[in-house]
Amino acid sequence: MPDPITFKIEQKIKGAFGRAGTLATPHGVLLTPAFVIVGTKATVKSLTTDQLKKLGATIVLANTYHLYLQPGDEIVRDAGGLHAFMNWHGPAMTDSGGFQVFSLGSAFTRNLNKFISRGELEAFVRGKIPEQTKDPLATIKEGGVVFKSHGDGSTHTLTPEKSIQIQNNIGADIIFAFDECTSPIDSYDYQKEAMERTHRWADRSLATHQSNPSMREKQGLFGIVQGGHYEDLRKQSATYIANLDVAGFGIGGSYTKEDMEDVLKWVNPLLPEKKPRHLLGIGEPLQLFIGVEHGVDTFDCVAPTREARNGAIYTRDGRINLFNAKYKNDFSSLEKDCGCYTCEHYTCAYMAHLFRAKEILGYTLATIHNLHFFVTLMTNIRLSILENRFLEFKDSFASRYYHFNP
Amino acid sequence: MPDPITFKIEQKIKGAFGRAGTLATPHGVLLTPAFVIVGTKATVKSLTTDQLKKLGATIVLANTYHLYLQPGDEIVRDAGGLHAFMNWHGPAMTDSGGFQVFSLGSAFTRNLNKFISRGELEAFVRGKIPEQTKDPLATIKEGGVVFKSHGDGSTHTLTPEKSIQIQNNIGADIIFAFDECTSPIDSYDYQKEAMERTHRWADRSLATHQSNPSMREKQGLFGIVQGGHYEDLRKQSATYIANLDVAGFGIGGSYTKEDMEDVLKWVNPLLPEKKPRHLLGIGEPLQLFIGVEHGVDTFDCVAPTREARNGAIYTRDGRINLFNAKYKNDFSSLEKDCGCYTCEHYTCAYMAHLFRAKEILGYTLATIHNLHFFVTLMTNIRLSILENRFLEFKDSFASRYYHFNP
Repeated sequence: MPDPITFKIEQKIKGAFGRAGTLATPHGVLLTPAFVIVGTKATVKSLTTDQLKKLGATIVLANTYHLYLQPGDEIVRDAGGLHAFMNWHGPAMTDSGGFQVFSLGSAFTRNLNKFISRGELEAFVRGKIPEQTKDPLATIKEGGVVFKSHGDGSTHTLTPEKSIQIQNNIGADIIFAFDECTSPIDSYDYQKEAMERTHRWADRSLATHQSNPSMREKQGLFGIVQGGHYEDLRKQSATYIANLDVAGFGIGGSYTKEDMEDVLKWVNPLLPEKKPRHLLGIGEPLQLFIGVEHGVDTFDCVAPTREARNGAIYTRDGRINLFNAKYKNDFSSLEKDCGCYTCEHYTCAYMAHLFRAKEILGYTLATIHNLHFFVTLMTNIRLSILENRFLEFKDSFASRYYHFNP
Repeated sequence: MPDPITFKIEQKIKGAFGRAGTLATPHGVLLTPAFVIVGTKATVKSLTTDQLKKLGATIVLANTYHLYLQPGDEIVRDAGGLHAFMNWHGPAMTDSGGFQVFSLGSAFTRNLNKFISRGELEAFVRGKIPEQTKDPLATIKEGGVVFKSHGDGSTHTLTPEKSIQIQNNIGADIIFAFDECTSPIDSYDYQKEAMERTHRWADRSLATHQSNPSMREKQGLFGIVQGGHYEDLRKQSATYIANLDVAGFGIGGSYTKEDMEDVLKWVNPLLPEKKPRHLLGIGEPLQLFIGVEHGVDTFDCVAPTREARNGAIYTRDGRINLFNAKYKNDFSSLEKDCGCYTCEHYTCAYMAHLFRAKEILGYTLATIHNLHFFVTLMTNIRLSILENRFLEFKDSFASRYYHFNP
């Protein structure tokens, strides 16, 4: 039976490890590197799929955990799958729900975000950030995870088998093995234990996927590498997952800001070159460059959509905030020479008004601009690889962007 | 100097008082009867102007009171006026702020809505609805109104002169005289006093408008008829306002549901046939038919946009609510044979999911459908007039619509 997901390298980066390629899915061919737009609940917040297509979106990611709870994966299946349900007919991914286990468990009890700074980590190690005492909403056992819904508090169990079954009902082109994400403040011993469990869960995820021939025809399973910020664990994990019969790889984890590049340097050379690599939940513009440089093909991140709803606008000159008083009287567009719908039709002053008035249209227009910025940035990164000037482009982008947002 | 607003009757309704016509404005010709879409803060809530145009919108109304407070009418002026500010290049109206005086004053102290039922009115007269004791946010004097912002509590004064000046800064094609809206529970004596004040304010509004030649070239002023639910007052008011040198008329007031038709029967025959008539803040589908039948040319109402955000969807078979459990599994569109973007691309099940998940896209898609419903209904009403079958169309629409929503 032919593989639903195929990957082809077009051009390797001169002087670095990464590449540009094409990733073929049952819903179309993705040009990589690519930015995957997050549509958690089968909707990219505040946008129609018409608006998504027009801003240049090529692939979306929905969340297994959220769709399982609401509307329920059977409803998505009965609608004809995620693509029909949300009216998105291009490539799509679902994560496995593993990251939500982290959010509801370890991260929840300690009020952690996905990223903590090295300073926060060191403060924690020195006992300066007290561990929170609230009960976790998720309990991890070998069989799977028992968790309470963040919505109604109802109790559910997620296992590798169930995650894959849910993802089968949802029907995205690329699905992920069920994994356990750890926190940088977890001990080495715990990170090792969680990584080994993630490997066993990857085996079980793969077995479930392989046992369903109709699923194997339509969906490609990606295995997830874990191991925290420890070189030996990351290399063990990459080696283990590399040997599985999967269509591609996810690189998971939560990081201090400084760890991400190290992790990619350890992991990616151990993964088979001919399969695609997805960096889960990353990132800010410079992280995209670092990821591509070290061999990442696709990225998903809520930053452009979430920040848009806070009035934070990405531009080549750094991120600006519409609540800054100077924008109330600024009748230029959000970004000079930007071709997005928002910049072509609306001014900073109008956007500043909409955000102050808490008008929904502000969220929509800011989201369009930010996503257009990320998608266009990835297109330009890809072009720079094809034209053998990626590192120059990275330097020129970073020096302009971080000159304003150091 | 040529009038910025001209109106031409195309076809009178066979067997009734109304008509179809064309209303020419500096930003294009409006086919009447027409539904004016409310965009209070220079945005039709949750929609881009691209979406507005695609659903068939022909004219919008923004609110003077709201734009004066946020972002300030000078900013709208400096942006190039309302059209440029909000990227809407078709005909536009602003109200005068008079209705907000009612909302902040009389209505606010008594927790009243624009409409009260005859039963509520009778209960009030019998002393069954106690008058609220909270302080009004607006105080009405002969000179104008002193009010507190609903936002930050700051104190402002609105006079006829200032209302017209603000509306000049905003720059809509059609503007309204500053008026005082009364409540059905106000006494006859108070309604008479308020009506006479509204007439004096109309004179002052007109004088301000006429004193500004550049404004008279670009904006047409409509006078507003008041007088509550009293036949003698309404006729006095219509006669007074009819004699002013205005471009058209607004019919204002708050009503018991039963009063509206009576008011139109009293007022409209006294207004010059050759000038357009706008019914302020009305209405539900059957009210549109009643209004057209009795000679109203344009209507504005928040119902389609506000109800959309509550998950209430207008269809030819009545209004449905997406929170009804049956829609969770309904994979048909919101309305059979509807040509709107929402119905062409999304299902009830998806909409039900979005509303349960409180996703912004739900508000956008429901708003598109509801506005398309109202705009299409008005187009069909107009067509029925041109084809001499208005009353038949009214009967067939009403019997189907109210069979489901009596």
